Formats: sequence, C-alpha cells, structure tokens
Amino acid sequence: MLSKINSPQDIKDLSLVELEVLASQIRRYLIETLEKTGGHLSSNLGTVELTLAIHKVFDAPNDRIVWDVGHQTYTHKILTGRRDQLDSIRQFGGISGFLKCHESDYDCFGAGHATTSLSALLGFIIADKAQGRDNYHVAVIGDGALSGGMAFEAMNTMGARNQRAMIILNDNEMSIGHNVGYLAKKLDHVRNSPGYVAAKNKYGPNMSQQVKKTLSSFKKYLRRMVMPSTLFEELGLRYYGPVDGHNLEELIAAMEIIKDYHGPTVLHVLTKKGKGYGFAEKNPILYHGVGPFDASKEIVEGKKEDFSAVFGNKLVEMAKKDSRVFAITAAMTQGTGLEKFSRTFPNRLIDVGIAEETAVTMAASMALGGLKPYLAIYSTFLQRGFDQLIHDMALHQAPMVLCIDRSGIVGADGETHQGIYDTSFLSIVPGINLWAPMDKVELEAMLEESLSFDKPLAIKYPRGNCPLLTKELGNIRENLLYSKGARTLVVSYGTMMEELLGLYEEEEFDLYNHRIILPLDLKKLGEVFSAYERVIVIEDNIYTGSLAEKLAGHFDIVPLTLDDGFLEQGSREELRKSQGLDREALRRFIKEG
Amino acid sequence: MLSKINSPQDIKDLSLVELEVLASQIRRYLIETLEKTGGHLSSNLGTVELTLAIHKVFDAPNDRIVWDVGHQTYTHKILTGRRDQLDSIRQFGGISGFLKCHESDYDCFGAGHATTSLSALLGFIIADKAQGRDNYHVAVIGDGALSGGMAFEAMNTMGARNQRAMIILNDNEMSIGHNVGYLAKKLDHVRNSPGYVAAKNKYGPNMSQQVKKTLSSFKKYLRRMVMPSTLFEELGLRYYGPVDGHNLEELIAAMEIIKDYHGPTVLHVLTKKGKGYGFAEKNPILYHGVGPFDASKEIVEGKKEDFSAVFGNKLVEMAKKDSRVFAITAAMTQGTGLEKFSRTFPNRLIDVGIAEETAVTMAASMALGGLKPYLAIYSTFLQRGFDQLIHDMALHQAPMVLCIDRSGIVGADGETHQGIYDTSFLSIVPGINLWAPMDKVELEAMLEESLSFDKPLAIKYPRGNCPLLTKELGNIRENLLYSKGARTLVVSYGTMMEELLGLYEEEEFDLYNHRIILPLDLKKLGEVFSAYERVIVIEDNIYTGSLAEKLAGHFDIVPLTLDDGFLEQGSREELRKSQGLDREALRRFIKEG
Repeated sequence: MLSKINSPQDIKDLSLVELEVLASQIRRYLIETLEKTGGHLSSNLGTVELTLAIHKVFDAPNDRIVWDVGHQTYTHKILTGRRDQLDSIRQFGGISGFLKCHESDYDCFGAGHATTSLSALLGFIIADKAQGRDNYHVAVIGDGALSGGMAFEAMNTMGARNQRAMIILNDNEMSIGHNVGYLAKKLDHVRNSPGYVAAKNKYGPNMSQQVKKTLSSFKKYLRRMVMPSTLFEELGLRYYGPVDGHNLEELIAAMEIIKDYHGPTVLHVLTKKGKGYGFAEKNPILYHGVGPFDASKEIVEGKKEDFSAVFGNKLVEMAKKDSRVFAITAAMTQGTGLEKFSRTFPNRLIDVGIAEETAVTMAASMALGGLKPYLAIYSTFLQRGFDQLIHDMALHQAPMVLCIDRSGIVGADGETHQGIYDTSFLSIVPGINLWAPMDKVELEAMLEESLSFDKPLAIKYPRGNCPLLTKELGNIRENLLYSKGARTLVVSYGTMMEELLGLYEEEEFDLYNHRIILPLDLKKLGEVFSAYERVIVIEDNIYTGSLAEKLAGHFDIVPLTLDDGFLEQGSREELRKSQGLDREALRRFIKEG
Repeated sequence: MLSKINSPQDIKDLSLVELEVLASQIRRYLIETLEKTGGHLSSNLGTVELTLAIHKVFDAPNDRIVWDVGHQTYTHKILTGRRDQLDSIRQFGGISGFLKCHESDYDCFGAGHATTSLSALLGFIIADKAQGRDNYHVAVIGDGALSGGMAFEAMNTMGARNQRAMIILNDNEMSIGHNVGYLAKKLDHVRNSPGYVAAKNKYGPNMSQQVKKTLSSFKKYLRRMVMPSTLFEELGLRYYGPVDGHNLEELIAAMEIIKDYHGPTVLHVLTKKGKGYGFAEKNPILYHGVGPFDASKEIVEGKKEDFSAVFGNKLVEMAKKDSRVFAITAAMTQGTGLEKFSRTFPNRLIDVGIAEETAVTMAASMALGGLKPYLAIYSTFLQRGFDQLIHDMALHQAPMVLCIDRSGIVGADGETHQGIYDTSFLSIVPGINLWAPMDKVELEAMLEESLSFDKPLAIKYPRGNCPLLTKELGNIRENLLYSKGARTLVVSYGTMMEELLGLYEEEEFDLYNHRIILPLDLKKLGEVFSAYERVIVIEDNIYTGSLAEKLAGHFDIVPLTLDDGFLEQGSREELRKSQGLDREALRRFIKEG
C-alpha cells in the first residue's frame, strides 16, 4: 500500500484498518531505510500515527502544518512525495533530515532549532486571516521544546489574540534526553493519572465498534481535564486530552472534534519514542540519532574518544579537585559529553531545558556568585544566547567558561546546525577570550588553565574524533609556531590543524597554531609574519568575522575560509571538498596560492 | 530624615510612620532631582515603598536582590549610598540609570534589557547554596517583563528545583506602554476582583491599629488566591497576593510572612506608575523617560521629527496603499514611532510583548505567508533575535523588513543600550541586505523601495533628530559619491553623514555615502577607490565587524570607528568626542590622517 502513497490526498479515503496497515508499513520502511542511511530513529517511530492522523484530518499545504524542529517528520516526508528519496536523507545532495521550505510545498516552515513553531504558526495565522483565507493552522511541538521561552512567548500572544489554531503537544517525555523543569513533571503525572488510565481502557482499542455511542462521551472526556488546571488554560489556550498517540481512531476523532473551535487549542498526545521497535523503545536516547545499523541486533555503544568525551572526562576530573566546578547544559547532557559528570556529580550539573538564554545568564550569575560554571553548548545553539553573552556575561566580566561543541562543519544535520559562525559572532562580544584546541592534549590543557582564568572564556572544538597531535605543548596561553624555516606560513587553529599537520610533514611551509584566537596580539603577529613571503590563514568559519578577515585588515595575508552564507548537509569530507578545504585542495592552495 | 540615610542599615530601626515620611521625602527628592537631570520618572515613583520594604526586610548585599532592568531602582540607589550622586544620573561620568555591579556592592547584577532577572537569581541561588550560604534571594520583575520567554524558562527550572526564593511581581499594568498578551489580561482582572477590593478595605490603612488581630487573617488572605489558579502555581511557584504596593505595612508584613517558605514564591504587588505626582499618574507613558522639566507644569509633548517619527509616518502612508503592510513591535510602540500606525491600523500592528525572538520568527512566517511585515526594533534589543535572524529569516529568505531604531550611539542609557554592534552581527546573517539612510529623504525612499524588495532587508537609523540633507537622491539602491575631485575620499553612512557633509563644505575631500552597507560591491568599490590617494572609512560601530574592517581586508583604507568593547553613557556629543568622532576630531583626522 505504501508504494501508492504519493501525496496526502492518497490517504484521505483509506479506512481505519487500511491506515493501521499503512502505519506498520511506514514503520518497517523507516527501519529498513535508516538501517542503511542512519538518521533520527526514535522520534520518527514515535510520530507515525500522529502524522497519518494530521494528514487525514487536515489538507496540507492549504492548511498550514508547522513542525517544531523537523527531525520527527520522516513520515510527513514519505506522505508528501518524498518516499523514494528517503534513502538520500541527510546525505550530501539528498533530502534534509529536517523540514525545508525549498524542498517541498508541504514544508511551510523549516526548523532545526527547537521552540520556533508556535511563533511561526502565529505569523501564518495573521497572514492567512489578513488575506481572507479560512485554512486551519496546526503546530506539532514536543514537550521538550516547551521548556524554551519562545513557546511561552507565542502562547501568551496566541491566547490574547484568540484565533483558531491547534497546538499538538507531542508528549514523549523526552527531548533528546529526559526532560527537566516543572512543566515536564506536571506532564508526567498525566500519563499515570486515574482519569487517563480509565479513559484508555474505555475507548482505546474498542472505540470503532461503538463509535456513535462513544463519540459524545469521548468529547466530554477530552475536556475533563485530567490536569485540574493547566498552564495552557492560564495562557488562554483550551486544553484537550490526553489521547493515545498510537491510536489512529482516537487521534483522528480528537482532531475532528477540536479543529473548529474558534480559539487556540492544545491537543495533548502521548507518544512513545522508538514505538514498534523493541531496541529503540528500550533505549530511545541511544536510538535518537543513529548511523547505519543492523536492525536485528542491538546497537552496542562504543567507547567514544571524541572532543565531547574528552571534555566531559576532564571536567569530572577537575570537579573532583575543585568544588567550584559546575556544569550547565541546555537539554544536551548526552550530546555534550556530560553523562559521566551527571552520574558523578548529579547536583553539580544544571540542566535548564532547551533554554540557551537562561543558560548563559545563569552561568554569569553563578560565576559572579563564586562558582566556576562550564556551559557546554553546541555552537549553533549558542546563537540563541548572543544578547546574553554581551549583556550578562561580558558586561559583568563573569569568569564563566563556554565550552562550545560542534564548532565548524557538523555534517549531516546541515544548514541549521553548522557551527561556522562562532568565531564571527563571539568576536563581537566585548573582551571575550576565545581559544580553540586542536587535539586532546590542548583541550585538556585549556580546561585546566581555565580554572584560574578570571575573565569570560570560550573554548571551541568540533564534532567528532579527538586526535592526539601534540608533540610539544608549549605555553597553552600562547600560539605555537611549527617551523622548518620555510617562506610560506600557514595560520590556522582547531579543526583544520590535523590535516595541516599532516601536510606539514609533506610540503614546504611553516605552520602557526593560532589556538588563542582572541584577543589578537597584533604586535606579536606582526613579528611572526614578517619572516615570511606569504601568509595563508585557513579556517572552517565563514569569511565574514573570521580570524582571516581580522588579520587581512592588518597584514598582507591570503584567506582560505568557508564561503559566507549557509553550508548544506553532507559528510565533513564532502563539505570540505565542496569548499576547497580538503587535503588535496589545501595542498594545491599552499603550494600554488 | 533622608539626609541621614547612607545605607540600608539606616532604615532598619525606623518606625512605620518614619518610613512613610521617608517615602514622601524620597518621592520629592526624585522629582526635584529629575527636574534637573531627566530620567525614568514614572517607574521610580511607583517603586518607592516597595524598595523601602525590601531593604527593611532583607539584608543586602548579603541577601541578593536582583532587579529586572534597572530603571526603577533610583530609590535603591538613594538607600545604598548614592543619594548625593543622583544628580549625575545618566550623565557622562555619572552614575548609571540602571544597576551596575561595578558601581555598588548592592547591585549584584546589572540589567538594561528586560527579563533576565529570574535567570540571574537562579544562578545566585545555586552558587550561594553550593557554598553553604543561607542568604535570601529576591528578584523584582515587572509584569511587562513576564512576557519575555526567559522569565518562563527560569520559572520552569526554579519550580523544579524548589529552592527558597522570592519573586516580587511589580505589577503596574505596563511595560513602557500598556502590556499585551494573555497573562497581562489575567493580571488585570486581579485588580478589580471582589476578593482584592474587600481585602484592601479590610487591611489597607488600618492594619497597624490591630496588627496582632489581623496578621493571621492577612496570612490567610495572601494565599486565598484571588486568581483561582495561576500560571505561577502551574510552574511550581507558590503565589501570594496581591498586596498594595504603596502600603508599607502590608508590603513588609507580606514579605516577612513569606520569606522563609522553603520553595520559590511569587509575591504579587500592585503599584502605580507615577505614584504621588499627578501629571505622571495621569500619563505614565509620557513621564516614563523625561528630559529636564518643570514639575509645576505638565510636559507638553512636542511634535518630533526624529527618525522614529519619520519611519512611523511613512509606514502609515505605505499601509494605506498596500494592504500587505503590517507593523510588528516588541512592546515598543511609542519608542519606535508606531503610535500613529497603532491608531490608524490597530489590527495591523502586532505587539508581541518583550519577546524579540518571537517577533523575528513571526515576521518571517508572516512574510512567507504573503504579507510585508515591518519589524520595528531597537538595535540593542535585536541582539535577542540573532539566532532567529539566521535560522528563520535568512534560511527562509523571508522578505521581511527590519526597521532598526537606536542604531549607533544612543546616549544616556549607556552600555546596555548602545546600538554599536549591529553592522557587525547583521553582516554574519547569510544573504542579508543592510541599508542605512542619512536623513528623512533617504529613509522614506528606502522604505518605499522595500515594498518591492523580495529578500530579507534591514534598514538601520539612529536615535534623535532626522535631518534633511539630501540635495540629489540618486538611485536609492546604490551608493552615492559627492565629488569635488579631491585626493582623499571619506566613506561613511547613516548617522555620521550629517557631520561629514558639513565638513565637506569646508574641507578638501570627496565623500562616499555608503548607504547600501551590505552586500558589498567590491568591484564597484575598487573602481571608486582607485581614483584616490587616501580612503578613510568612518562609522559609529565598533571596529570588529564594521564596514571599515570589511573594506580593510580588500583595500588600503584607514578606519575610524568606535573602539571595540562597551561604550559608556553620556550625550552623543560627549561620546563622539571621547571616541575621536566629533567634528573637530574628524576634521583633523581627515586633514592630517
């Protein structure tokens, strides 16, 4: 049946039984495809029925369906004409792992960062109403994303405007990891509330046999408000639910009942990450994002030696000897390598949820209060805290440490996740210190050094394997020259150094490890550069705001950076190649200029 | 009595009657001082009793008092040893109009942007508890600031952590203008609820006469929850109130009753902006921020011809002929010149509250949905939407228009309000178009042009008088050369042009109005620059990320910009002088280099 589905129109006439068959075919197709390609498995297995119900009840693209983040939309992609391209997902040149306006008319708004969906929906409601359209507006947002302030901002305005909209709360009890915050606690209670359990037994599997009889009592149940009062009602949104997110009949009935309500509604849907695939249900975090795997066997988590792990291990060691050391994460304990820290010092890891702004400001006051906070955060998500970096960290000269993970090219997540703007936006922040280690030795040394560093500090490092390159560390507070007395000097830092150190063995150039990116020591640089005929600055940051651009204003250098703009998805190797930053391109550039 | 108060210790032993006398003395002192200096009048008159009560009940600086934004803290400054400096407030070299860590130990966290206080308080709680301190933690946040997402983020974490803290909700029904959003509506209901009115009559003025009898019933009242269920309780914060924010006895009693509760609490305090000064009570918006004035007469609002007004008037004209035109503000209808628009097209102005992130994302989807949204926003507050500019506006190539007010040096508001980073952070945003008009003719022409411009566009203009300088407009999509065949070329844009055009009449140089800041047309610039011996680039943006820095990487130019870092408070003239950008310094620089 799946092979005949080329647009949402093709499911409109399917019976409930046929839809259920289709759901199981999609689930199988997802597992089979992701076995080969890798991708976001757990979350997509959790939204199969929900997506089918949405496309059954609403008429996309005329009705606007906005998905918060897009990594749970593989079923949406399958239903909207991209089934046969699914095996190219997250690959160079393939379809995106998130939604993308330019990929399909059915993707009315793309998102790789959480918590934007309600604000986006609000804009569409205003635009459509102003132009006399009478379409429906639906957002699908996870319970994790609700911890971000933007969701609250949008609900506050939605409630006041009181225009028709449906917010589907896809409650799977998780972000990538387990959710935190008081709201998450409240939502947890709902699952086990007597009201919901009774309703589940009453409706659940048997609903279809007595649809007419049960529908009116189901309507009543939806408003019986298992939560006696809810956050959503406080914000002027009408709450309905919860309903079983894997029961198509319940989902469809609930959406049909609610969709014409004149104001904004919240439909609380309970789903299970990894649903229908035992290993993923058991360990949804492990199966959140997978590489190619064998579905018949459980994935064995390898011991990683990536930068995140090196950071996390070192921080545990530091915390043992220094009680001021605290870790902060914005819902990314696993991704940033803080799992061991969270087990070793559960009270010294503060997870604020998907709330990067609060994370930065809170870190600043923790530092002012006498602690040594390490905020571990992906480069792309730190963009959310840009104002707070200036207004709270820098202005107070708070001696906090930003540990910026996923700096540089990140790969398969594409445009919304590349960490290629951080040198640029951080260098605007008054008085910031920005360091970039190239390997394990440097990262550990910088972290160690940070303990006694009394100013705002950012240490940035890339995704992936953390090599061992250092032969002689030198003074970690200074840059380091590798010299063979050549006439060409290559200046770089961090990620690019591994490739360049390899080339250094083979080609005739000196290499300057500019690991202390900021502040610039122009006098020192002038002395170093004066010995060379040619100075090339190489980095995986966009040109605007790069170290290369800064140096170009003072010295006669040749820049080799990423192009300004967005950088698509692909492997790091593919993307480097596309930007002329792969090994052979570097070799040619250095040799020939 | 006021003259004897040099620290909060000096009010500890005052009787209630003495405190009331002190309150009226402070109020008079505020009015008398601000008559001469100008400053934030309405909000400070509203917080006299609240501040006295806080310093009576809590022991700053050991107890942490975090004020959200700091413009209502003049009484706090008076009580903490800065009484005699109040007449220097907001002046060059004087005390800040906001709180500042480096100004006083009693200012544990500074803020010029709203909504940071709860996140900051959270950090202090964690830091103090970790170090075994048993101090109290108090934040004072306005109802307006609650519309910002950070407040929600912090409350969600505070509720879950359940540590002792008091959030004082200073509810005056306003931001600078009237509040929007559903939460504001709910708070409004409280003031007129029968429960509160009855309580006001019961306790109110007579409480002291029967303290013992009333105190226990007052305790009960505080938890009777005029709002039957509240947002705060939903987030795990215990709600108390409301209490009369101008009744010292009630305030002190309430704080004493609540302060030892083991978890986070919200004390809802009702205050009146402008309290005790008739003109300001009547028109708190007009008296929000005042220049020097005569207290015996009502301020007459002059007809302004500043950039904001020109923008606002032009937008009304455009909206009349083009139904796609919508305006968006983040709680700054007045400041951004949108008052006339709000009266003419009330349904086409969307005020999202102090929610800049939502404003940017919503503008993007409005544009994608077919409207032409104009987001009017101060430069410094747009920093809050940095991620959304990249992730939502740029990635979707949404044809929205950012109308960036208060770009460049803003003056008396100081470090937290300077718009001196915008060329820097905007130029990181992929594909952005950035224009800067120098006068009314250019601003109107750019706005007119924006109607048919189909890509993300930012138009930035400064605070203050909008001059008429243009003699010949030329093609508004191109830069413009003023030539007398000199050998020196000065390149600039926007704010600096008025001064430079004046000098152009007197000195020997050509002048290039680089009003299309981005994208750069390097080929064209190369042709223009090649005719000169010397090219100077002048702008009121920090050097890092400036147009000057960008050009320095490609051409042999001499930059003259603001220094990197923060820029203090003072008049625009004083600050320009301090940075070597005043008329005579410019003249010397251009002549001598």
